[in-house]
Parts: sequence; structure tokens; C-alpha cells
Amino acid sequence: MADNKNKGKQVEAITSMDQDFAQWYTDVVLRSELVDYSYVRGCMILRPYGYAIWENIQHGLDKMFKETGHENVAMPMFIPESLLQKEKDHVEGFAPEVAWVTHGGTEPLAEKLCVRPTSETLFCDHYSKIIQSYRDLPKKYNQWCSVVRWEKTTRPFLRSVEFWWQEGHTAHATAEEAQEETLQMLDVYAKFFEEKLAIPVIKGRKTDKEKFAGAEATYTIEAMMHDGKALQSGTSHNFGDGFAKAFDIQYTDKENKLQYVHQTSWGVSTRSIGALIMVHGDDNGLVLPPFVAPIQVVIVPIAAHKPGVLDKANEMKQTLAEKFRVKLDDSDKMPGWKFAEYEMKGVPLRIEIGPRDMENNQCVCVRRDNGEKTIVNLDNLEAEVERLLQAVRDGMYQKALESRESRIYSAVDYDEFKDMIANKPGFVKAMWCGDEACELKIKEDTTATSRCMPFEQEEISGTCICCGKPAKKMVVWGKAY
Amino acid sequence: MADNKNKGKQVEAITSMDQDFAQWYTDVVLRSELVDYSYVRGCMILRPYGYAIWENIQHGLDKMFKETGHENVAMPMFIPESLLQKEKDHVEGFAPEVAWVTHGGTEPLAEKLCVRPTSETLFCDHYSKIIQSYRDLPKKYNQWCSVVRWEKTTRPFLRSVEFWWQEGHTAHATAEEAQEETLQMLDVYAKFFEEKLAIPVIKGRKTDKEKFAGAEATYTIEAMMHDGKALQSGTSHNFGDGFAKAFDIQYTDKENKLQYVHQTSWGVSTRSIGALIMVHGDDNGLVLPPFVAPIQVVIVPIAAHKPGVLDKANEMKQTLAEKFRVKLDDSDKMPGWKFAEYEMKGVPLRIEIGPRDMENNQCVCVRRDNGEKTIVNLDNLEAEVERLLQAVRDGMYQKALESRESRIYSAVDYDEFKDMIANKPGFVKAMWCGDEACELKIKEDTTATSRCMPFEQEEISGTCICCGKPAKKMVVWGKAY
Repeated sequence: MADNKNKGKQVEAITSMDQDFAQWYTDVVLRSELVDYSYVRGCMILRPYGYAIWENIQHGLDKMFKETGHENVAMPMFIPESLLQKEKDHVEGFAPEVAWVTHGGTEPLAEKLCVRPTSETLFCDHYSKIIQSYRDLPKKYNQWCSVVRWEKTTRPFLRSVEFWWQEGHTAHATAEEAQEETLQMLDVYAKFFEEKLAIPVIKGRKTDKEKFAGAEATYTIEAMMHDGKALQSGTSHNFGDGFAKAFDIQYTDKENKLQYVHQTSWGVSTRSIGALIMVHGDDNGLVLPPFVAPIQVVIVPIAAHKPGVLDKANEMKQTLAEKFRVKLDDSDKMPGWKFAEYEMKGVPLRIEIGPRDMENNQCVCVRRDNGEKTIVNLDNLEAEVERLLQAVRDGMYQKALESRESRIYSAVDYDEFKDMIANKPGFVKAMWCGDEACELKIKEDTTATSRCMPFEQEEISGTCICCGKPAKKMVVWGKAY
Repeated sequence: MADNKNKGKQVEAITSMDQDFAQWYTDVVLRSELVDYSYVRGCMILRPYGYAIWENIQHGLDKMFKETGHENVAMPMFIPESLLQKEKDHVEGFAPEVAWVTHGGTEPLAEKLCVRPTSETLFCDHYSKIIQSYRDLPKKYNQWCSVVRWEKTTRPFLRSVEFWWQEGHTAHATAEEAQEETLQMLDVYAKFFEEKLAIPVIKGRKTDKEKFAGAEATYTIEAMMHDGKALQSGTSHNFGDGFAKAFDIQYTDKENKLQYVHQTSWGVSTRSIGALIMVHGDDNGLVLPPFVAPIQVVIVPIAAHKPGVLDKANEMKQTLAEKFRVKLDDSDKMPGWKFAEYEMKGVPLRIEIGPRDMENNQCVCVRRDNGEKTIVNLDNLEAEVERLLQAVRDGMYQKALESRESRIYSAVDYDEFKDMIANKPGFVKAMWCGDEACELKIKEDTTATSRCMPFEQEEISGTCICCGKPAKKMVVWGKAY
């Protein structure tokens, strides 16, 4: 066909993962049409296929937020400089990386506004106005929006000037309730990542050095990517009453005494799509867990020109469409092209239907995660597809778990530790004295950072891996995105 | 109870509509907790109740967009100055009212960025990269986001520095297809407003003076508020190939010739919530159509301390919760307080259940729109609630339609016209020669603007209401928000 301007329409080869993981990643995100670069430095465009994954993540998380009693709101995207400055640690953490609006129309502003890098200050200001009595508590709000951080080096999903996320912000009467909320939301995230995204995570607490600017304690779920590096996948912060004091958020308790509220915040972003790609992807492209896959099942007719094939394929589509996101590709491209295309896009299940299958009242189902073929009787189609999609999710989780477990090491002396970090992609468990000086030295010596102090502690040894003093905590260390 | 800091907890009286409509509006939006003012000038906070309405509007429209073949994407929130300037009319229309980002972190930017007031330029730049062949067309994208326009005078929902909306942007092979899309989306908007929001609208075309900056033609749905003023409620623009030429969006057609695409854009915003308030509200507060009401049915137990009442109320809630958004208010407040509170919040249907009702296996259903009470047998509860909610929607639409129809006037001479605009709140139909000078004079003389040239034309007279020359079009005139 005379159409030489029409690029990107063949299934082009992508770089192999093991040859160049960074290039593989870029190839996959562009080739599967998740994102495109925009005219704006460091800002990505979420294309329909990428946005559909984000929509599915949103629906899944939003349901869990509402089931745990949270309500959605929308705050302004701007924060006046004076508001950002109210909490000292917070402004120090964020001011160096915000975008500043200085003019409205042709006029300079009396006070410059930053584009929100996160919205604690806006929620706090609002809470200070609407919370008066213990009967106004708890307030459990969430918002879905994009935020901006002026990053120098950017990569789609992993680090960009603008990204999309949700940020939960809650206010409670007591410290205990705030801590309960903080841990509850970390559990929601862990459950969502493991059950829906098929990504195993390590739950733990961040060291003080790594915690959120203004938080009393930050909790995290950490996932291991295919290259052994860590991706911080969701965080939940307990603010104590620090923000409440800075913003004067007080309520009258049952004894008519003024008390400060205790607050939390927690967030998951479009980084989670980066995790999906880097945990599950392979040299043929994306591998998507069924829960978030924009297309869960693709039907590819074989010998589609033969009588009845397209009719049967259409009939199967109708049957499946009630329960699944299903696509019938009846274009005139070759089946082999289609196989490669939907593998690239990570569609969890492919169904092939041709004249010989029809004779036997069957079709062929092929799993994306392991290539396994199953002959399915058409009378059981719906139930079998459901079973196979569950098997895909389970298989993906198991594979990711085994891949991670085989790359978590334990170190008892510092030379061993440095050797592991340098030569064995993965996480290293090691004991720590709790001193920030050791944490900084480890980072300087190895470029590894403390990922978290896991809830599931082990006693690897009795002494700090770095200084040899008595150890307080086991820490998981790793290089990170 | 010792709780004197706890304000806003009684059902406070609001200003009467007829006494001061503007104050009534402000009272309603604050008192029903739709929005709050924020720390940022001109920017509102959508509180849970207001955001829930917006979520319902989003779900309804998004479904219609997807049914008509549109896909969601997300574009960056920033537009570099050079990109904004590519289409001459467009930049002239928007540049005076945008917010400019001039610094990232501590450094001045090489090129300043505006916060999107609308995203034509970003979509066009993206389309110029991804459209090559006729096989790439049409592209039918939409995004849900907030945009910023540096307004001096602001009012919640009606005019604010930041507002939430959806913006559809499409590219087509031919002018005919683009025109078809433009009108299709106007129809989607009209259908949504009339069926789901119970707001009758006039469909028509904007005059050139009132059209969108850069459009070839703008179409609109115009609604009449309680005070007779107009609210432009949704617009759909046909861009022809103007943007395509400015951004070089070309495709190779089937004959291998380069052609420019033809584009459209269309949007509906949180202004629609302003329309809901001002079309349906009354002196008791909001009146919400069931489709968007965050609470569709509220159950108020009467004599709740009597044995079995709360159990029965809970049982009714369980029954109804499968199909409706239902709330049981079992707090210890008085029923009268609850009645007023949920009237203020516009809940379409209130159900009262007390000991005497239980004896008779019945409950009392009270419609918010007209106060009508219906005794309902509990065995038919679900079906009766469904019927009553439909009746509420139908009643609201009919009432709004009659209210509008009774305030649309026709003028044949200019004195009559000016008198009507000055003294009769509502719309005036009058003939127009098509000359912008007359349109400007009318605005100067009366402050009324041309709302649209309705698709349903009538011949009120043969000559222009302003200059007396032969008329070309009937125009609907009115004062507007």
C-alpha cells in the first residue's frame, strides 16, 4: 500500500531487556503507546492505552478508599508562598523543586504561587476552617489530581515534572487513630499491589532520613524491578500533630477542651505503571495483569475469509463482552502480526478461532505471561476465560515473587555488603545501628539507599553493618529508581 | 451540649431567592457544603458533597463519550509560550487571561509556560506527531482536568480562576465528518442536560463575535436560570482546518496526497453545577435531580427510640442500597432538623418510617421537588422508589421548562426590545441583520448579549431589530452569567 509516511504500524523489534534495560523500558512505553513525549520539557502525555491503565488503577483504589470511609474532594492547584512556608520542614523539602507562577495575565502577582507539589498545606488550611468539634472528626479526604515537581532528569512514569496521583489527607482526634489510619492505608496499597497488580511488596517504615518532609513517620511499600532495583510504590505518612500546630487545627473535645488533631497523608501515583512495566514486562513487550489491562482478551480469527469464522468470532466477542474487556481484531492484517502486536500491548489472554477449531466447537487460548496454550470447548468459554485470567494473575504474582526472593541477600560484614550491592542486582538485608551517619556513608560508598525497615524483622547479626556498634534494626538496602 | 465552637451545625436560614438572588446562591453553595473558599484568590475547594455531584456528572458524560467512540488521555498542564502563539486568534483570545510560570525551583525558565486555559495547542502538537495516514483517522480524544483563567471577579462554579471540566479534541479526514462530530457532541450535551440534569436547553450557533478563539463555528446549549439570566452550559466548536494549518497536521489520503485534518473541540465544566443550583433550587436550598444526587434517598426514622424502628429503617436501607444511593440518618437529632437539612442538600426523596407506619407495613415518601407525600407499602418499596425518583426528574424538567417558556419573549421593534430586556427577566427573540455593529450596539444599549442563533428558527419579523435592514437570522438575546 502506498503509504510511506505511515510509520509505527509494523510491529517493530524492541531492545532486549538484558542487553539494555533502560532502552528496553523506553522502547516498551513508546511502542505500546502508553505515553508520548510532549512539547513541554519533562512532561509526558498519557495516551489512550496508558490512560486506560491509569483509569483501571483509579477505579480499583477509589473503591477501596470509599469502602474504608474516605471521600473525594478537589483542592486548588496553586499554593501561595506564605501558605507553603507555614510548616518549616515541609517547605524546606519542597520549595527547591516547585514551579512558580509569578504573573496573572499581564500583571505581576502580589504574592507568587507555586503549582502544588503535594497538597498538605491546602488541606491543613481547609481543615483549620471546617474542624471545630470532636463531632467533625475524623475527616478522611482524598483527591485525584496531577502535581508538579521541577525534576532535572526525567523518565516516563518514573520521574517527570508533572505526574498523576491520588493524595489522601485525614485528620483524627487521637494519635492512636492517626496511626491506625496510616497503617490501614499502607495495607490497602499492599493489598492492591499484590492482588490487582500482581506485584509483591515489602512493607516497612522509612528511616528518618528518607521520610516525608514534615512527617513524624513514613511507611512504604517497596517493589523489586526486573533489574533488581527498588521502586518505592506507595507511601503512607503519620504527621502526628506537627501540621496541626503549624496550621492551628484544633477541636473541642467532649470535655470542652481544645486539642490539636492528628493527621495522615498517603499517595500512589502513575509511577505504579512504571512498576507494572518493569516487574512483569519481557522482550516481547508489556505483560499486564488482567485487573488493569485495557484489553483483557483479544480474539484473533484465523483464516478469517473462510465462511463463518468472523461470525463465530463476533459471537464469542458478544458472549465475553458482558464480563470482560474484549477486543476482536478483524482487520486484514496477518495473524502473526496481530499476535506480536497484542503481546507488545501485554493483553493477558489471546483467543484464536479458525475453521478447524469451529469444526471441533473449540478455540485456542494463549496466556501472555507464559505462552501456555489451552484448548477450550466453546460451551465453557466464559468460565474458562475467567479461570485463565485468574491463572494469569496468579502466575504473574508467583513469578514476580520468585524473582524477588531469589535476589534478596543478607550481609553480615561491610565488605560482603559492598560486594553484593556492586555485583548482585537486588536487595540486601543488613543490620543498622540507627545512626544517620552510617546511612549516609553506605549511600556514599555504594549508591544504595535504605529502602525500609521491614515490619517483618530478622536478626541477621548483632551489629551495624557499617560501624559495628550494636544494631537496632534490620534494614533492606538497594539501588532505587 | 457544651460545644459553642461548633458552628454551622444547625439548619440556618438562607436568604430568600426573590429578595436577593446572588446572596441566595452564595448561601446555598456554602450552606449545603458544595464548596468552600480557599486560601488562593478566586480558587474554590470542591467539598465532598460538591465533588460527588461532579463525579456523577463525569460518570454520566464519560459513558456517553465512550459510547460515541471517544478515548480519554491526559495532556500536560503547561503550555510553552511559543506553542500558545501558533494559532493567531487563539493566542489573542487567551493570552490576556493566563497564569504564567516563570521559575522552576530557584531558576528562571528559558521560556515561560502558561497553565493551560484550554488545551487545543497541546492536542494539535500531539496530533501533528501521531497522525500520518488516513488510517490514523479519526482521532477522538477527551480529557478530564482543571484549567486556569485569570478572572478578576469570581463566583463559585460560575466564574473562577481554576475550574474542572472535560475537553474533547478530535481530528477527522473531512470537513463533513468534523461538522458531524461537532453537532453530535452538542446533541450529547443537550441530551445529558435534559435527561440527566432535568435542565431544558436551547441548541444553536454562536455569532462570530461570540465564538471560540480560533474556531470556524461555535455551537452552544443555553439554559435559563431562575432569575431569567442565561448560562452557556456547553459548547462544541468546529475548527475547520485552521489549527491544522497552524500546527501542520497533515495526513496522506488514499490517493497518497497530503491533506490537512479537520478538527473539533467541545467542553462542559463545573459551571453545570451552577446551572443545577440556579435552575432547580428554592428557598429551602438545593433541589437535585436523582441522576447526580450524592444521596438519592434519605431515610429518617420517627420515634427512633421505639422498639423495632431502627431495625426496620436499617432493613429498608439494605433493600434500597442495591439500586440507589441511600442514607439512613439515625443520629439523635430531631426529625424536623433532619427534614430541613436534607431539603437544604437537595436530596430527591425522603422516607419517613415510624411505629405507626410499621403497624401498617408502610412508609411515607416525600418528594423534594414539590413536597408531595406518598404512602408506600413496604412490599413495593424498591419499585415505588424507582417510580418516584423518575417522577422527581420528570417534574423538575417540566417545571424548569414551563418556567423558561413563560419568560421567552419576542420583540419586533427596538423600543419594545429594550423595554423587555430592561424589565422582563428572561430571553428575547428578535431578528438580526448579521452585522456585528448591531450586535455591539445592542450590548451597549442593553447589556444583553446574543446567546445563540437557535437551530429552530422563527420569522419574528422581516427586519433587524436594531438597524431595520433585512434580517438574516433570529437570535435569542439575554443577560448572561
